[in-house]
Amino acid sequence: MSQESGRVWSPVITPFGADLSPDTKRFVAHCRWLLDQDVGLAVFGTNSEANSLAVGEKIRLFDALIDAGIPAARLMPGTGSCALPDTVAQTRHAVAKGVEGVLMLPPFYYKGVSDEGLFRYFSEVVERVGDERLRIYLYHIPPVSQVPLSLALIERLLRAYPGNIVGLKDSSGDWSNTRAVIEQFGADGFQVYAGSESFLLQTLRAGGAGCISATANVNPGAIARLAKSWQADDADEQQAALVRTRQIFERFPVIAALKAATARFSVDEQWARLRAPLLALDERQRAELFALLDDAGFDMPGLKTADLE
Amino acid sequence: MSQESGRVWSPVITPFGADLSPDTKRFVAHCRWLLDQDVGLAVFGTNSEANSLAVGEKIRLFDALIDAGIPAARLMPGTGSCALPDTVAQTRHAVAKGVEGVLMLPPFYYKGVSDEGLFRYFSEVVERVGDERLRIYLYHIPPVSQVPLSLALIERLLRAYPGNIVGLKDSSGDWSNTRAVIEQFGADGFQVYAGSESFLLQTLRAGGAGCISATANVNPGAIARLAKSWQADDADEQQAALVRTRQIFERFPVIAALKAATARFSVDEQWARLRAPLLALDERQRAELFALLDDAGFDMPGLKTADLE
Repeated sequence: MSQESGRVWSPVITPFGADLSPDTKRFVAHCRWLLDQDVGLAVFGTNSEANSLAVGEKIRLFDALIDAGIPAARLMPGTGSCALPDTVAQTRHAVAKGVEGVLMLPPFYYKGVSDEGLFRYFSEVVERVGDERLRIYLYHIPPVSQVPLSLALIERLLRAYPGNIVGLKDSSGDWSNTRAVIEQFGADGFQVYAGSESFLLQTLRAGGAGCISATANVNPGAIARLAKSWQADDADEQQAALVRTRQIFERFPVIAALKAATARFSVDEQWARLRAPLLALDERQRAELFALLDDAGFDMPGLKTADLE
Repeated sequence: MSQESGRVWSPVITPFGADLSPDTKRFVAHCRWLLDQDVGLAVFGTNSEANSLAVGEKIRLFDALIDAGIPAARLMPGTGSCALPDTVAQTRHAVAKGVEGVLMLPPFYYKGVSDEGLFRYFSEVVERVGDERLRIYLYHIPPVSQVPLSLALIERLLRAYPGNIVGLKDSSGDWSNTRAVIEQFGADGFQVYAGSESFLLQTLRAGGAGCISATANVNPGAIARLAKSWQADDADEQQAALVRTRQIFERFPVIAALKAATARFSVDEQWARLRAPLLALDERQRAELFALLDDAGFDMPGLKTADLE
């Protein structure tokens, strides 16, 4: 499935107040900034610290976005949890509001589970949500979840629920897997997203849909530009520039680095906070990150402080 | 800390109805049967499929035990979740009812987290629960959680919260680690439980507290007998017999095997059901398990069908 324009989504970072509660005002502001640059909102992803949030907290943040007038069609919330009732509750809620789709982790506590067990899990979710608008993007992120989604499992789910299983995010970091998923399922309209913009051009050239990437939180404009102009003459140069920026962030714990940069460019220290077990960058790391970003001429143009909202 | 009698706890298996909802009646009945044999109730452990349950489901099951007159002092519920608010809510609820302690997993979604991050997480839990009755047993189970608890972390937590960090369950399967934890912290009253009765005698001889073991769901009497009589002449023989029984269950997916045996000996097929992604044993596996158990003369004496309760 070759296409005019690729799509970019950001697993939106989640701001926390001094008591570690989610900060709705800053969350909405950051989402608006991303949308302004044509980046969709894959809220409650790994880089959103979604699994450090209770289900009720995620539902309240989601509702705050809807109430703020964020279009549901630009939302792809993560709803996959270890427990079936949690996944069903979050998915049903999101689908009822008309989201583009949901990004679904497999249950990730038990390791070495079978494809049959995972198939039954996703089947239960589809059956229980029971909504023909349900569009699931499977979330393959074995380095973190430690529960991979095999090609055989994807094939079986697609055959059973062709209208509900619509795509996959591949955060394996293994291009041969991304390419295999695109080759095997892409022709039928299955939308494959790379988990990093470092693979954006390769993904689009192979017939994939785009990327859902942590660093789209901080470098959205440039990533969205390549997604749009990937058939232009300067595409490889654009791709190389994206990789250079990403590699700066990858030298640090990534979520902490995204938050440190957002804190700095919005002049708002509240953004730097993470929930344990994750930690903010220390002073030395921050200084190193900011020096590297300055050397690269990095900026987050248009980012406003929360007080200006 | 050498002691007269060791202690045994069972991570109680959780029965599910046809709609996969937890079955309170059978749960209470199984807990009573375990208590009758002097085995405590480490409800909501790994073998309880705790992480396949929503927080609300666990709170309701816990309350059903209290309402049924199960003594809170015989309960050690698992309360560790990925999200701080979930861990705090479950822990606070359990402590308020007067449980012996809580068995606490580290947050297990993010991998490769630092000791500093884990220390801050457990610190937040202690501070937020804010109850001097809080007694935490740390739950070290790296094969499943993939987030180990280091000796340095234990030491730091013990120093910061000596009244709240009271012990550890070691499900690493690595005796050298269990021994190291006992040697380093046992003299101060820190209670170290082996995660399997295969290490029960070694643990007690080294000065540990006992075991918290999956197979205590099906073989409670014999395990509790060794815990009491570990200084008797036949202790090594008893230990060898426990290992033989356990090895039968370890030939199969363990939770499914525990449930299949419970279904058979209570003549109650409802017990055989698991929540996806875990699966019940298939017919061939059941036949093989039952043949091995029969050859070994295995029984679950006193187990009643739910209808007889």
